[in-house]
Amino acid sequence: MHSIAKISIDAMGGDAAPGCVVEGVAEVRRRMGDTARFLLHGDQAELAPLLEATPAAAEVCEIRHTATYVSMGDKPSDALRRSRGSSMWNAVAAVKDGEADVAVSAGNTGALMAISKVVLRMMRNVHRPAIAASWPTPDGHCVVLDVGANVDCAPRQLVEFAIMGEAFHRAVHGQARPAVGLLNVGTEELKGNEVVRAAAQLIKDAKLDLNYAGFVEGDDISLGRVDVVVTDGFTGNVALKTAEGTAKLVAGFLRDALKSDPMAMAGAMLGRGALKRLKDRMDPRSVNGGVFLGLNGAVVKSHGGTDGVGFATALRIAIEMARSDFRDEVGKNLQRLADQPDGAAPVAPAPQPAEAS
Amino acid sequence: MHSIAKISIDAMGGDAAPGCVVEGVAEVRRRMGDTARFLLHGDQAELAPLLEATPAAAEVCEIRHTATYVSMGDKPSDALRRSRGSSMWNAVAAVKDGEADVAVSAGNTGALMAISKVVLRMMRNVHRPAIAASWPTPDGHCVVLDVGANVDCAPRQLVEFAIMGEAFHRAVHGQARPAVGLLNVGTEELKGNEVVRAAAQLIKDAKLDLNYAGFVEGDDISLGRVDVVVTDGFTGNVALKTAEGTAKLVAGFLRDALKSDPMAMAGAMLGRGALKRLKDRMDPRSVNGGVFLGLNGAVVKSHGGTDGVGFATALRIAIEMARSDFRDEVGKNLQRLADQPDGAAPVAPAPQPAEAS
Repeated sequence: MHSIAKISIDAMGGDAAPGCVVEGVAEVRRRMGDTARFLLHGDQAELAPLLEATPAAAEVCEIRHTATYVSMGDKPSDALRRSRGSSMWNAVAAVKDGEADVAVSAGNTGALMAISKVVLRMMRNVHRPAIAASWPTPDGHCVVLDVGANVDCAPRQLVEFAIMGEAFHRAVHGQARPAVGLLNVGTEELKGNEVVRAAAQLIKDAKLDLNYAGFVEGDDISLGRVDVVVTDGFTGNVALKTAEGTAKLVAGFLRDALKSDPMAMAGAMLGRGALKRLKDRMDPRSVNGGVFLGLNGAVVKSHGGTDGVGFATALRIAIEMARSDFRDEVGKNLQRLADQPDGAAPVAPAPQPAEAS
Repeated sequence: MHSIAKISIDAMGGDAAPGCVVEGVAEVRRRMGDTARFLLHGDQAELAPLLEATPAAAEVCEIRHTATYVSMGDKPSDALRRSRGSSMWNAVAAVKDGEADVAVSAGNTGALMAISKVVLRMMRNVHRPAIAASWPTPDGHCVVLDVGANVDCAPRQLVEFAIMGEAFHRAVHGQARPAVGLLNVGTEELKGNEVVRAAAQLIKDAKLDLNYAGFVEGDDISLGRVDVVVTDGFTGNVALKTAEGTAKLVAGFLRDALKSDPMAMAGAMLGRGALKRLKDRMDPRSVNGGVFLGLNGAVVKSHGGTDGVGFATALRIAIEMARSDFRDEVGKNLQRLADQPDGAAPVAPAPQPAEAS
């Protein structure tokens, strides 16, 4: 636990970088006070004038010059070969070197995952990293993982995700004893495919210190029936994007409805404060930040298209992770799981880098 | 093509049966005119007075008495053994016997699928049936399949679903040349798991007469980027339920916002016509009806908890299917696919009955 979090930022990653990064630092400082200091990896010539114009950020930032950066279009394998010394590489390496607690980037997801795996390496007793996303619910947040790092998952990996997702929720959203569910097509024990059924059995056999709530279904995510939903990266990615699409659809239907007649337009004028609050509550920037879990050090991936407000949300997650005892907390449960004999479905050997951006 | 569709109904299936069935018949007649006649399979003593009280339904219905029915809690395997002569069995058998074009039930999904498979058997060149659901989009409907019949799918099955989903969209939603997408975690060719990549290759190799649009992502469903989205029953079920949950979440947020202050409440009063239209547009009853495709005869599964308005939507889908040349339309493409050599991933042999309700 650090009193002041040390956050390492790839200041050149993202469509609106480095502007959104400097704004994000200023914004998170407004929200959270002086809880963190930031290393900005990137082009000194671009960053210095931005900081000069933004004293709130300048006071807590230090520039680390890099001459290169990973572009959004690079393939992860190419980026990995060529990225040593780039702003992204150095941001992650600062965590490895103990200079920072957590790295943050709004750059190329696949490249960030590839670099993070090579530089930080897997945490003991974890087979593959997962990307955890936070989702709004009526009363708080639901953490869903994996949302894209592993398209195929063995049962044991899903259980590792359950352990990490539980500790992540506690660290970032503050639930003391988060309820964890396994995503399935029904809640009865016999439902689903072999992988989820075997994962459910393994959770029970391993006697984890975990508030396991059984199988959950897709609608339980938004309705907040549990705090953590565990699934493979294919299903999780589809669910996350389906939810985003549905929220946009409903928002579009609402806009259409409010423009449909003069009475509705007048009503919308009267209710504009409430509609603004609705918009804020649905704002994707308020849940920005997928976290790579399972490495020796946390890495937060901001959406590539975000602005300063959204980047500040990703920074908040990074700060909460830095102040938590995430690694110590998951250690015991991961060891209990590792002590279980391998079942019929071992972890598949081929790594599958995340390429969703 | 039949000028008057003949629809066979399990009048005892569903939480509100048989009342919702009789109301549904009256309602669909109001909406569509005299386009269909209905066989109601169920308890004569319950159905006769309901029809007597509802002349609009009575004029187009004929009761077929059955003494038993499948209950919602029955396991599919048990239901299958004991259900011969039940309202559900007889409703499906009427399609087999040529008395009706399409069967409709709001009863137990797993039992309905098991009975349908045994009674109707698989269409030539189809390995397993799929359940197709219709989804609202800004301009119409997106058909998603499979949403629960097969938790694991081989590439060849996904291609069969593509062929059937395309013809289904044309039959029921009237798009002459529906665009078909394969659900994936990214749109680039190298994305996703082996199954979807092999399915994409097979679609191209088989030279199908199909408007294939490539890979799509979860948000493309609600945004209507394509007309038909093809996926396995696990992912499809999760996506469908996630979308339902998200729509409920946003509706809840909207209700909270409109009650949050007196101005908003006044605004909501003024805009109540528009809000009512929004509610109608989001009404799950307007998309009620999952269709079992791939059998020798279509079966429409209404949501078990629906009322007469929702049941009428399922009946509309049944009538459109009955009036279409669905089976002839899919025949040629299924044959082209069957002529393709089997790839590395053959269709898995173990059948996986749908049990989602």
